[in-house]
Amino acid sequence: MRILVANAGSTSLKFKLFDYPDAKILAKGKVERVGDERGSIYWFENEKGESKKDECAKAGTYKEGIDLFLNDIGGASQADVVAFKTVLALRHLGVHIIDEDVINDLKESMSVAPVHNSAYLGAIEAFQALSPNAVLVGVFETAFHLTMPLKNRVYGVPYEWYQKYGVQRMGFHGASHSYIAKKLAPFRRVISCHLGGSSSICAISDGKSVENSFGLSLQAGITHVSRIGDIDPYIMPYLLKIGVPYDEIIRGFEKNGGLRGISGTSGDMRDLRSGAKQGNARAQLAIDVYTEGVKKYIGAYAAILGGLDALCFTAGIGENDYETREAIAQGLEFIGIEIDKEKNMRNEYEISKENAKVHVFVIPADEETVVAESAYALVSEGDRA
Amino acid sequence: MRILVANAGSTSLKFKLFDYPDAKILAKGKVERVGDERGSIYWFENEKGESKKDECAKAGTYKEGIDLFLNDIGGASQADVVAFKTVLALRHLGVHIIDEDVINDLKESMSVAPVHNSAYLGAIEAFQALSPNAVLVGVFETAFHLTMPLKNRVYGVPYEWYQKYGVQRMGFHGASHSYIAKKLAPFRRVISCHLGGSSSICAISDGKSVENSFGLSLQAGITHVSRIGDIDPYIMPYLLKIGVPYDEIIRGFEKNGGLRGISGTSGDMRDLRSGAKQGNARAQLAIDVYTEGVKKYIGAYAAILGGLDALCFTAGIGENDYETREAIAQGLEFIGIEIDKEKNMRNEYEISKENAKVHVFVIPADEETVVAESAYALVSEGDRA
Repeated sequence: MRILVANAGSTSLKFKLFDYPDAKILAKGKVERVGDERGSIYWFENEKGESKKDECAKAGTYKEGIDLFLNDIGGASQADVVAFKTVLALRHLGVHIIDEDVINDLKESMSVAPVHNSAYLGAIEAFQALSPNAVLVGVFETAFHLTMPLKNRVYGVPYEWYQKYGVQRMGFHGASHSYIAKKLAPFRRVISCHLGGSSSICAISDGKSVENSFGLSLQAGITHVSRIGDIDPYIMPYLLKIGVPYDEIIRGFEKNGGLRGISGTSGDMRDLRSGAKQGNARAQLAIDVYTEGVKKYIGAYAAILGGLDALCFTAGIGENDYETREAIAQGLEFIGIEIDKEKNMRNEYEISKENAKVHVFVIPADEETVVAESAYALVSEGDRA
Repeated sequence: MRILVANAGSTSLKFKLFDYPDAKILAKGKVERVGDERGSIYWFENEKGESKKDECAKAGTYKEGIDLFLNDIGGASQADVVAFKTVLALRHLGVHIIDEDVINDLKESMSVAPVHNSAYLGAIEAFQALSPNAVLVGVFETAFHLTMPLKNRVYGVPYEWYQKYGVQRMGFHGASHSYIAKKLAPFRRVISCHLGGSSSICAISDGKSVENSFGLSLQAGITHVSRIGDIDPYIMPYLLKIGVPYDEIIRGFEKNGGLRGISGTSGDMRDLRSGAKQGNARAQLAIDVYTEGVKKYIGAYAAILGGLDALCFTAGIGENDYETREAIAQGLEFIGIEIDKEKNMRNEYEISKENAKVHVFVIPADEETVVAESAYALVSEGDRA
């Protein structure tokens, strides 16, 4: 069974074609700057590792971008299943065949995950037209968190909001955290730190998600590049009261907030680090808020896990930024976290000191494998949530 | 100097008359059910410990309630200073003489602290009329938290909101946490848990507040009796989008949320405990959300303090509910928290096991002493923030 995993960003597409049950990778592809009038960047690699790159490709739409890749793998018929790392459909939190009901749910859930859902709706529509015979599967980012106990799921709001409107902590980055959970299966109590363009922390007990720092939305938790993270829920009522327009508040929450909002310059950790080194106090402040936020979640999640056996860093910042990892670990010796400075600087797989109580790892994210596996399980065994 | 501390609730008034510099207590009083048509309950005790109680007192307004007490201490002239445990004025976060500017600020800050500020504005107005010669002082609940570093103060929102609109983590329950900080001055890293009608956790380093679970408002942090606590900031935009009216959302946030919202029956921990014992699953859920919330803050604050030397429980639940204390401590052995079951059941002063790394205390709240002391310091030395 050939499973094509399609990862849709707001202006990018990433593909990986797997052959199951062996999980062999047959091809990979990437389209950047979809819809850009300067032309798009297209990159393709076959199973032999032979690759090509076109810096002036034609991908004015998702459909054109997808077509580039489908042509190179020998046509749409090569994919029996197209699997998407879909984000949020409030009535479909697991792994699902994408039908009209799921598509409507994706549309209805737009207010909670606007950027992500519109990208996936575009990609799904394009595949429906290009590969009418393929089975489309949504591996929702919430699926791994279905094991969260109710006490970590409900908020202190009227319970009817949970029952009637689905107001609850969902948790996202499920594919990423689930990959870490499998890699670290020998450890009982694990905290997974997905630190990247958006960041989330996950408490994992015996391989199962217990809580995730994302909430109902992907805005909550750790401060993100330009999205707020955890804030006082009365900031909105207060700003409305003093006359700040609703749309301006939402812009502040989504585009002008986060690390970019604090620094006033950039939300990219690399820019912030170089800014801070040049003496920019606001860049340093943004770094400190981020570090402190991750530290607090590690402490909080160790508390609900009753202690910690393994800690893991993954995704862009988690895998590459040793300074952030070092700053986070500092002061957490009381939990048993002790990082080896040299190993950490070299981004080694295990970076904890030899006799430290908690094993600390740096593990490259591999969400595509989880998405392909979950889709394979669904198609061969039936809907599981 | 005679300092009268006046504590104003939405339907209650509490008084304590101190003589400074000795901090001798000359009289105490309490009026309950202010404005109730069934009549009010008035209680008074003099310095000899002689007390009286009137269950059908006349206190239709704050002014009438205050008058009852002033008459019993020998008239309004007995108080040189009237000190209030005021809650929030966004431009006056410390300890201040109450003048027109402060009163206007209290009014302008109503959207963030509606219930508390209106009670204090009523009490201040009544004292202005009854004791025109007394100096009125506001010891704001935010004063103790002025030491919070900027990285724990700012949110991931546009920095201009902090500069222009004062959007920041304020921290409240300052009088209570500051009392605990003084009592536990010998310990370097302290977490104070004020668990009561509203709850907040405070991280204290060398006697100074480092962070508090309250935010810009008194709605954030731990789930309160009927107020939300920490929730995803996108719950409001989501509910607005699906057509829930703004006022209904605010009612859910303030009156129908919190522990009451989760249980659907009561937000009072005693009711929840008896409900849970009778098998009410939603009552148990509310208890679990509360316990888990406190646990997470203890873990998070231990993380930013770099470990813990002392933990303290205070206020209604903190002082009296041994089951809640036990549930919170469970699983926190990795931090060094170990409670002695017997001592805990007897509400002893120190309830940790003899050789435990972290000293755990139960300390009755005494906010009035802090308020009187702070007012005395201001009036004798001048404005300090």
